[in-house]
Amino acid sequence: MYPRPRILHCTVCGQPVRYRVPADDNRERATCTACGHIQYENPLNVVGTVPVADDGRVLLCRRAIEPRRGLWTLPAGFMELGETLEQGAARETAEEAGAQIAMGPLIALLSVVHVGQVHLFFQARLLSLAFDPGPESLEVRLFAPAEIPWDELAFRTVRRALEHQLAGAPQLLIETIA
Amino acid sequence: MYPRPRILHCTVCGQPVRYRVPADDNRERATCTACGHIQYENPLNVVGTVPVADDGRVLLCRRAIEPRRGLWTLPAGFMELGETLEQGAARETAEEAGAQIAMGPLIALLSVVHVGQVHLFFQARLLSLAFDPGPESLEVRLFAPAEIPWDELAFRTVRRALEHQLAGAPQLLIETIA
Repeated sequence: MYPRPRILHCTVCGQPVRYRVPADDNRERATCTACGHIQYENPLNVVGTVPVADDGRVLLCRRAIEPRRGLWTLPAGFMELGETLEQGAARETAEEAGAQIAMGPLIALLSVVHVGQVHLFFQARLLSLAFDPGPESLEVRLFAPAEIPWDELAFRTVRRALEHQLAGAPQLLIETIA
Repeated sequence: MYPRPRILHCTVCGQPVRYRVPADDNRERATCTACGHIQYENPLNVVGTVPVADDGRVLLCRRAIEPRRGLWTLPAGFMELGETLEQGAARETAEEAGAQIAMGPLIALLSVVHVGQVHLFFQARLLSLAFDPGPESLEVRLFAPAEIPWDELAFRTVRRALEHQLAGAPQLLIETIA
């Protein structure tokens, strides 16, 4: 998950910006001192899956990249332009785990306020037990519910999605991660 | 809803960017020709409510701004950094309609692929019938189900959220608006 450096220059003309409140607004925005272009910054969506085998085991990936290299995560990443939420979640599952899935219902929708993200996890059924870890994963494996490495999970949203899945995901979990 | 112009200059150093595929990536990104900074572009969330009075009438706002000035919409707008989905939806409802609400369940989650947006609508219960249209609204009023101005709605996502609300919103509507 890439960082978002403070905006210093205008994306349209390249001149310096200043953070100020535009006339018709109530928040400071990066505003170009030369051409007046306003560059907005808004939360981003991270989309992923909770891939479950027919025997109830859950797929996790061990991260090959920072942050949290070496810790376990669900396949997930930033939603891209040109795709739906489900397509993004399927793409990340293919890229990070090489897993074949049938997409299921959305089970967790988490506002991660301190990093300006919204995390969305779909339940997915694994159609095969053959995986192919991508460059972002050191390892991909299945965990029975009793084996989940709770102390070695990369992100709190992954923990919440897994807890909700193991509780049977009776309804969509909508929650704030402060 | 503001447009997103093509990125021409680097937000870090102001020099020109070129769209190219970074080494560890598979999509073209705006990459600085001088400092190498990569500026990502991703879908944005639009959050809003379907405010319903106790007699079943639904609140709509007539847009005072482009696009679709003069047409009717649900209170909604871009989610901001530092807020949850629900806080964003409540803020937009206050800003555009001056309405007091109790937030209800999420009823529609719509991937609007062609504009790179995800629209999320929460059901809301109106706590008062006193409104205060903000600068983005020409007018705010309640419509009985039979009175909804279907031919004068601003956006297809508004239509889908309203149709789902009037069908009783039996479950979360997850859909793609192509």
